Amino acid sequence: MILVSREVVLYDTTLRDGAQTEGISLSVGDKLQIVRKLDDLGIPYVEGGWPASSPKEMEFFQQVRKLKLKNSVVTAFGSTRKANAPVGKDPQVESLLKAETQVVTIFGKSWDFHVREALKTSLEENLKMIADTVAHLKQHGPMVMYDAEHFFDGYLANPEYALKTLQAAAENGASCLILCDTNGGSLPSFIHRVVDEVKSRIQVSLGIHCHNDADLAVANSIAAVEAGVAQVQGTVNGYGERCGNANLCSIIPILQLKMGYACVPSQRLQMLTEVAHFVAEVCNMKPDDHQPFVGVSAFAHKGGVHINAMQKDPRTYEHLDPDRVGNKSRFVSSELGGKAGVQASAKVFKLDSTDPEQAKIFLELVRAKESEGYHYEMAPGSYELLMRRAYKKRFKDFFELEKFSVLIERTPKGTLTSQATIKVKVDGKSEHIVAEGDGPVNALDQALRKALLPFYPDVGKMHLVDFKVRVLESRSGTAAKVRVLIQSQDEQDSWWTVGVSQNIIEASWQALVDSIEYKLLKDKKS
Amino acid sequence: MILVSREVVLYDTTLRDGAQTEGISLSVGDKLQIVRKLDDLGIPYVEGGWPASSPKEMEFFQQVRKLKLKNSVVTAFGSTRKANAPVGKDPQVESLLKAETQVVTIFGKSWDFHVREALKTSLEENLKMIADTVAHLKQHGPMVMYDAEHFFDGYLANPEYALKTLQAAAENGASCLILCDTNGGSLPSFIHRVVDEVKSRIQVSLGIHCHNDADLAVANSIAAVEAGVAQVQGTVNGYGERCGNANLCSIIPILQLKMGYACVPSQRLQMLTEVAHFVAEVCNMKPDDHQPFVGVSAFAHKGGVHINAMQKDPRTYEHLDPDRVGNKSRFVSSELGGKAGVQASAKVFKLDSTDPEQAKIFLELVRAKESEGYHYEMAPGSYELLMRRAYKKRFKDFFELEKFSVLIERTPKGTLTSQATIKVKVDGKSEHIVAEGDGPVNALDQALRKALLPFYPDVGKMHLVDFKVRVLESRSGTAAKVRVLIQSQDEQDSWWTVGVSQNIIEASWQALVDSIEYKLLKDKKS
Repeated sequence: MILVSREVVLYDTTLRDGAQTEGISLSVGDKLQIVRKLDDLGIPYVEGGWPASSPKEMEFFQQVRKLKLKNSVVTAFGSTRKANAPVGKDPQVESLLKAETQVVTIFGKSWDFHVREALKTSLEENLKMIADTVAHLKQHGPMVMYDAEHFFDGYLANPEYALKTLQAAAENGASCLILCDTNGGSLPSFIHRVVDEVKSRIQVSLGIHCHNDADLAVANSIAAVEAGVAQVQGTVNGYGERCGNANLCSIIPILQLKMGYACVPSQRLQMLTEVAHFVAEVCNMKPDDHQPFVGVSAFAHKGGVHINAMQKDPRTYEHLDPDRVGNKSRFVSSELGGKAGVQASAKVFKLDSTDPEQAKIFLELVRAKESEGYHYEMAPGSYELLMRRAYKKRFKDFFELEKFSVLIERTPKGTLTSQATIKVKVDGKSEHIVAEGDGPVNALDQALRKALLPFYPDVGKMHLVDFKVRVLESRSGTAAKVRVLIQSQDEQDSWWTVGVSQNIIEASWQALVDSIEYKLLKDKKS
Repeated sequence: MILVSREVVLYDTTLRDGAQTEGISLSVGDKLQIVRKLDDLGIPYVEGGWPASSPKEMEFFQQVRKLKLKNSVVTAFGSTRKANAPVGKDPQVESLLKAETQVVTIFGKSWDFHVREALKTSLEENLKMIADTVAHLKQHGPMVMYDAEHFFDGYLANPEYALKTLQAAAENGASCLILCDTNGGSLPSFIHRVVDEVKSRIQVSLGIHCHNDADLAVANSIAAVEAGVAQVQGTVNGYGERCGNANLCSIIPILQLKMGYACVPSQRLQMLTEVAHFVAEVCNMKPDDHQPFVGVSAFAHKGGVHINAMQKDPRTYEHLDPDRVGNKSRFVSSELGGKAGVQASAKVFKLDSTDPEQAKIFLELVRAKESEGYHYEMAPGSYELLMRRAYKKRFKDFFELEKFSVLIERTPKGTLTSQATIKVKVDGKSEHIVAEGDGPVNALDQALRKALLPFYPDVGKMHLVDFKVRVLESRSGTAAKVRVLIQSQDEQDSWWTVGVSQNIIEASWQALVDSIEYKLLKDKKS
């Protein structure tokens, strides 16, 4: 279908705009790890940060020069000079040169309203600020890219002035003008029309930088490419302030697999899912299970009709082969899926999947467990363990529980303590461990890890990232059954496990144990 | 800017397609609650479910008929008849009529590939299946809408056949033909072109139903509206299988505030944020903080430069006024407003409501507690207690806690025991009580009741009916803070109370104590 191969240049701003996300705080080491990963993926430009904003940022630029990058050029980000002051003495502009990058990107104002209300300066002075700063930087060596902040709002309000700001950057040597939808409120048809009109007036190559406030950042970026921009800016997983930036994990496969643009080397595209999880891990963010292309549920099929058709031909319910972005199809293991779903899963786990009698027995087991309140659809980790046990491909018993106890006390002063003791047998050796924690489940988690770490150091490389409790049959009040779901994560993957009991501590224990067994089993396989 | 007011009809499928989300499982009661909320918001069509799929679905249709809805029509969903079998004897089709809805929506195949590979029937028979089923349903009364599954993939593969499937539905009386991007892989420009072409060939009104596999469901829905469809289908919060369905919480404000379409009564649009959170709560899904329009971070400003400009004029960094969708701007620190609400509540509780200083102090207390994770909107019982305490109209101390402890043990045989001890002072008399229960919270509940019953026999007339646990800040895994909500009931009333702590036992204790105090206070007043 796709005949022409054209190029779009990707510009990643995860380390700068993405780091503005509430909840993300990156160390220099974190940023260097992400740069290496983006270099592996083949991203041409990686915006490293704003050197003037903190000494940590400048340290990053010193460190990143020592990396031997194969594909990525790291850029420094800043703004135009201050109003009514010489550019040569502006410390913010000077720090951009001190970062010693091959490329510098600066932003300036394109919206007359912002010039007046936020900068409190004249429209004329703003044009000089753009011109001076681009010229000064260019004269000192680096290639200069120009981010036109609020370009689309500015163009709507005063198109002639917005164009003049672009001309000021272009005439002074900017090599690319990036049109920014800073407030993220524009619609794709408007973006397309404006890019079209700008292209007819400006000769320099254009780029696009979108925010997701109207849930349209990916669509707006695509619309701009259709209208002819040469550069697309975005972040991994769409991280960014408010509703985030345009998500490169969606834009890359759309451009490359659906529109025939070359973005990253085609064999590298298979790294995409891994890169998305890796960046989530380094940013300490929970991955979005339903994220297009790279989420663990992105190619997960639930209904029996869907699973049936998928067995006949995956194109029936998949818009592309998940393998191309490093993801995989998965059959959600609820009883809706039936025997076909069980056999499909067995095949995925490389178990003997041909015996229909075995599938039937297993399906009955799943149904019995689900009627007790287990919900394997939400806990594929526990599902895989259950199936491996049932199919007699029993993995080694990593440990045996003898007993546990949890004691929560509140003193007359209101102080709370939670203490857990567990007795487990590992490799024939009994371990009796006590640990404290923030709450009873955390205490149990601490005790179990303390017991297992000497035997299985890899347990130290996983951690719990999410924890859900659902009360089943809530009509029985505090004596109701509860279902606990736990999500764990390591550098490669994340997985959910489940426990059910009338006792919330016991339910949590079951999910914790499955979570650790899944990790150990996974590492053994690989 | 917006001059023309045109109408787009919304069709919500949260209860059917949304319920396909991995992790969502709705009871009949949950579904009825959601219907009521969507009716309040003013959604014209609410798809209730697939009556043939389970007895629970049919029970929903029996129950929903009893609701007095003001704005919404509930629809039943199903498929065309089986191949090579009479429509009148197809139990799946019959169950659609048994649901007794004014509108029935059925889906059928438009993609020749799917007819051959998934249905394993002839292209001709598929057309008959569509024609027969629409005609049969129509003849028995309800208005029939037709979902053309995989329409866009089908149109790409074999446009003439795809159009014939639409004609089969149209000629037999379908009142709206909904073009579905079932696999979610289409691009907005393609959607626009196809809708354009279909419109020139088909006279019946068209609708759009998009999935988000390419991160473009909202953009694709908007593109279809721009090309002239009259109905848009989607789900609250974009819930749905794999990567979800088109998100109505984004589509509604885009259509209504940015494009000038009438979707819901304009004063109802302010309910949008509340509806999004309500549905998330009923589905037991954590709301997405960064969700466009309705997320808590959607209008949250972090950087000093942004906050500065925002103080000068909110339009500098906001694409629309958050108030219009019931959301609000947020700065990292101080917030304003809300005093009027406090004074109104004080009046309801017959407290001195005229002192503005007291209202201010109380508002600060509520904000401090809410930033710790308390959520008084969900726990009016605890809110009333908090206000009575703050307004010095302190009710009698029914009891004083000295200390408690909870011990959970699992023996080597797997037996579990939960035991709670509490020491409380009632009427100057110390009571030291021990009790067992089914799980730690139940044990604590038993102990507290045992201690109080001799003094307050009315405690025996209330019981706990619902219990919800929500993990806040889930990133810290098992050390996360949890919010416990407890609903209690006596012969007259039911009330919700709340507790928050890193320790789930302590959080439950707080909610239990509030629940009992609320009951005692209520009885004293009456």
